[in-house]
Amino acid sequence: MIKITFPDHSAKEYKEGITGLEIAKDISTGLSKEVLAVSVNGEVWDLTRPIKKDANIRLHKFDDPEGKHAFWHSSAHLMAEALETLYPGTKFGIGPSIENGFYYDVDPGDGLVITDADLPKIEQKMVELSRRNSPYVRKEVTRKEVTDYFRDKGDEYKLELISELEDGTISVYTHGNFTDLCRGPHLPDTGPIKAIKLLNVAGAYWRGDEKRKQLTRIYGITFPKKSMLDEYIEMLEQAKARDHRKLGKELELFMFSGTVGQGLPIWLPKGTILREKLENFLRKVQIDYGYEPVITPHIGLKELYTTSGHWEKYGKDSFRPIQTPSEGEEFLLKPMNCPHHCEIYRYKPRSYKDLPIRLAEFGTVYRYEQSGELHGLTRVRGFTQDDAHIFCRPDQLKEEFIKVIDIILYIFKVLEFDDYTTQISLRDPDDKEKYIGTDENWEKSEKAIIEACEEKGLKTTIEIGEAAFYGPKLDFMVNDALGRKWQLGTVQVDYNLPDRFDLEYTGSDDQKHRPVMIHRAPFGSMERFVAVLIEHTAGKFPLWLTPDQVAILPISEKFHDYSKKVLKFLNNYDIRTLIDDRNEKIGKKIRDNELKRIPYLLIVGEKEEKSNTVSVRRQGEGDRGAMTLEDLVIFLNKEIEKQLNIN
Amino acid sequence: MIKITFPDHSAKEYKEGITGLEIAKDISTGLSKEVLAVSVNGEVWDLTRPIKKDANIRLHKFDDPEGKHAFWHSSAHLMAEALETLYPGTKFGIGPSIENGFYYDVDPGDGLVITDADLPKIEQKMVELSRRNSPYVRKEVTRKEVTDYFRDKGDEYKLELISELEDGTISVYTHGNFTDLCRGPHLPDTGPIKAIKLLNVAGAYWRGDEKRKQLTRIYGITFPKKSMLDEYIEMLEQAKARDHRKLGKELELFMFSGTVGQGLPIWLPKGTILREKLENFLRKVQIDYGYEPVITPHIGLKELYTTSGHWEKYGKDSFRPIQTPSEGEEFLLKPMNCPHHCEIYRYKPRSYKDLPIRLAEFGTVYRYEQSGELHGLTRVRGFTQDDAHIFCRPDQLKEEFIKVIDIILYIFKVLEFDDYTTQISLRDPDDKEKYIGTDENWEKSEKAIIEACEEKGLKTTIEIGEAAFYGPKLDFMVNDALGRKWQLGTVQVDYNLPDRFDLEYTGSDDQKHRPVMIHRAPFGSMERFVAVLIEHTAGKFPLWLTPDQVAILPISEKFHDYSKKVLKFLNNYDIRTLIDDRNEKIGKKIRDNELKRIPYLLIVGEKEEKSNTVSVRRQGEGDRGAMTLEDLVIFLNKEIEKQLNIN
Repeated sequence: MIKITFPDHSAKEYKEGITGLEIAKDISTGLSKEVLAVSVNGEVWDLTRPIKKDANIRLHKFDDPEGKHAFWHSSAHLMAEALETLYPGTKFGIGPSIENGFYYDVDPGDGLVITDADLPKIEQKMVELSRRNSPYVRKEVTRKEVTDYFRDKGDEYKLELISELEDGTISVYTHGNFTDLCRGPHLPDTGPIKAIKLLNVAGAYWRGDEKRKQLTRIYGITFPKKSMLDEYIEMLEQAKARDHRKLGKELELFMFSGTVGQGLPIWLPKGTILREKLENFLRKVQIDYGYEPVITPHIGLKELYTTSGHWEKYGKDSFRPIQTPSEGEEFLLKPMNCPHHCEIYRYKPRSYKDLPIRLAEFGTVYRYEQSGELHGLTRVRGFTQDDAHIFCRPDQLKEEFIKVIDIILYIFKVLEFDDYTTQISLRDPDDKEKYIGTDENWEKSEKAIIEACEEKGLKTTIEIGEAAFYGPKLDFMVNDALGRKWQLGTVQVDYNLPDRFDLEYTGSDDQKHRPVMIHRAPFGSMERFVAVLIEHTAGKFPLWLTPDQVAILPISEKFHDYSKKVLKFLNNYDIRTLIDDRNEKIGKKIRDNELKRIPYLLIVGEKEEKSNTVSVRRQGEGDRGAMTLEDLVIFLNKEIEKQLNIN
Repeated sequence: MIKITFPDHSAKEYKEGITGLEIAKDISTGLSKEVLAVSVNGEVWDLTRPIKKDANIRLHKFDDPEGKHAFWHSSAHLMAEALETLYPGTKFGIGPSIENGFYYDVDPGDGLVITDADLPKIEQKMVELSRRNSPYVRKEVTRKEVTDYFRDKGDEYKLELISELEDGTISVYTHGNFTDLCRGPHLPDTGPIKAIKLLNVAGAYWRGDEKRKQLTRIYGITFPKKSMLDEYIEMLEQAKARDHRKLGKELELFMFSGTVGQGLPIWLPKGTILREKLENFLRKVQIDYGYEPVITPHIGLKELYTTSGHWEKYGKDSFRPIQTPSEGEEFLLKPMNCPHHCEIYRYKPRSYKDLPIRLAEFGTVYRYEQSGELHGLTRVRGFTQDDAHIFCRPDQLKEEFIKVIDIILYIFKVLEFDDYTTQISLRDPDDKEKYIGTDENWEKSEKAIIEACEEKGLKTTIEIGEAAFYGPKLDFMVNDALGRKWQLGTVQVDYNLPDRFDLEYTGSDDQKHRPVMIHRAPFGSMERFVAVLIEHTAGKFPLWLTPDQVAILPISEKFHDYSKKVLKFLNNYDIRTLIDDRNEKIGKKIRDNELKRIPYLLIVGEKEEKSNTVSVRRQGEGDRGAMTLEDLVIFLNKEIEKQLNIN
């Protein structure tokens, strides 16, 4: 008998060789129908793999990442089987599960091209094959066996992959007529793969190397229930409508220019207003929290980055150094602001009484990305971090962490990101030599982070071994209106740069000490944050933030003069207002300006001019009746105040 | 007889061969004692040179630049004579007059070094020689004569200069025992050079070429009266005390770091606050004037600058292109914002109704300067232009010019630059092929500028032939509190970039037209403007602008809590306040905080705490008595409002 321990620490004895599926059946038939994979001592296994020793187990359903992984990985194999059936001779590269679904990179052979038009046929074949409930059978094999198999099959991609594996670690999975080189885990059989959608076809170089053959990548997603697939497709459509690249263009927030360069966002007037409002909002919060603003150049001598260590670590993948026409200097586009801020810290002697010093900068940095990796505002080559570096004494760490968390939570609240999670990344205590800094400092700072999160009542997951080599960190992830997860704010302790830049302060003991450094960026970057905000709000920004707050819609040309009077009045109160003086019907003007996401529309005609009022419509909510201009200003300012003074 | 016409258009007949000096004597003995040079038909001549034909003349005294030039140029010869007397065998490079005084580059021969310590001796010798009233005698010479003279003398520097002159254009001047190769003009004799000060010694490569010999450059200045020299030296001392590099350090406004790179300013917290206040001030003015803010990247593909023409013109003297690690792209650090703004204009079709479009950006640009050229914030390698580009129809040019002038004058007024001059630079109508753009456009835009300046009542000088090849321009120069002239704002018409970027708008005639572009920067750059502002105000910035507006000075530690209460109260009203809680006597606290240029000092002790007041001191003006906190806020805001609402 072996002892199986469950996540709730309860335990039960089972016969040696029991499988995850049998344990699930033992618990309930319902569970056994939903379970997809099992973690055995932290490793995810097939449900049908015998457990031969005492073990801690967790059973995974579809809502666990581990369950999804097995489900989608098995779906990739199922798609491969369908492809082999439809296109005999197809060769297979790799076919992993991904965040949403799976793909397989395949080589259908010369002369055959698979396009989006072929997807329904392949989907159809997958449905047909899945209904056979073919079991996924794992087999450990020798290099010779598996090499012989794929050589016979003529699949050079698999042969290349095998050549890189170690003997004794090689396994294959077979279901139906299809066998694949695979580490697993997989579902017990194809039965649960009920709802299938192949999404699109793309090109992908074998091993990501542009000098090698371009394979056909087919993306798909599957679910255990049709309703789940329907929901997902609905979400995809909504996401498409909210895509920040599409809305950014429609709302004229930003642009890219092939002549300026890929991945270099240009902020158009409306986007600039939005961004400046966000920056000023954070600037004000930061001043209240004792931050000091600084401005540093966008380049620095290469020496600055050999001191910081960035050159050694990232140099060869970065924009190349900038030479000077004479004097032989070498500069780099700055990839981060921290080395510059360290130089400011070093500018004059610091005493323990001066700390913490909090230097804040909306600093634009440049990092090279391959053009294929670029994506709207979320993956760019130049972006502006809402950066700050806090230099503090070790005993101030916890208080500083709490203050940073306060700022981040305040921002989330004002911007209505109500659904967020946090992750604390700690070092691996079994692998201490990977990290720099003393044990004492690590323990202090890890404790400070954990306690700060507890005091603020954050729901956190703790990941051991996920810390950077230079310090533990805290990450904030928000779920947007469509339930998609975005990594935003980061708070990172750093013992490395203070060392490398030889930063010091004089303690109360009159001795020199090393300050601790905290890097933090609540938005992450202005570009990424604005992208998330667009997708979260579908472009309907809060009134205080939106570029155009009010549109005046004169019923006819006769009321243009009165419209201008209203505009001037509102401008005097810093209310961002425009006039739609096109020669169009009022209904069309309302529709067009609602599409532009302008929160308030003011309709003006004879009645309004005579009574010195405007007829107010709230975007998506319709008529609010007539208001005097004075009342309107009070009304709008109240809404803004309510949005900003949320605490 | 010849006819001599004076600047007031009056004319008089004189015998042929009359000299400027004789004409001056004819007018008045007083004038003849003050006159230093004469312009004859626009060319500056020695006063003793015979005038042989009818001529327009102007007589120059010391207050004319032409008078100063002759005075200081003659002084350089006088110094050379003194050097030759004291250090026989000295060889001479060039010895021009400059904006303030003169210098001579000399080679005293091997083994002899002239240092600042030698200056009094040389000065003394100059005084002695000047008293001899030696006349400066001009002689036109052949190349052979002059070559023989300097070969005999053994002065290879002069020989090199002679080799580059054309026969028939060579003249020498002799006074006392010294003869120099020289074009003139000079004073009649050394007599007027009464007050002499040699300033300092520096090294200077022969012909500015670092591969050639380093000569000794001796700077000096002279005046016709001792009182003028005293005044100048007093001004120099004041300028030294106001030097923005010195005050920038003392007031902790900015720093440079050898590790970040020379000429790359880093704005410290107090400097950043000052700069952001200035930017926000201009931002608000610009919004009122219909500007739209944009933000563009700090790099652009090389292609952008081949399109704009900047690469061809400035490429080889700029920071070298930035390569990418793959994909073979080449970027440049942007040296100006205009090409990016042209790309924004091109972003969508524009109609005549959309114009003018005014795109504004505080855009940081990078231009390579040799390290020897760098100087504080006035000559840097990276700076932020308060840039905007106006794209308008030709018929809108004048109105746009007037609006730009309005903005610039408003800024000058608020920042108390009451003494300024303007210069209009037009094309040379005799050399039209130097310029691009049609005659019609040039005439229109030159007329627009001239009329706009007239309508605004500006005192302007018009310089023919000083326009850029792409359009006429208007420059603003301010005189600071010490009477020094600084070039600040610029307004520049551009017909070139709209062509190169193929910018268009659809006219009311439904045809495509080219917009005109206006570049304008009222401050010039934030760096340069802040430097001028520091030197103009000696660091005593207006209340609205100054980084720390108020310092609270508790009389003793007992009043720290009350001080914090006052601080919090003032912070709530966005008044930038600090507490000086050092354990120092109140007298020292007052002195130290006045030195920091903090406008208001609040002294708090028992009386103040009890009555909930503060005792107010205005920097440099002393006691203002006790005020309640509410009254203080009203008082300060009134001062700020008065400073900003100057119109």
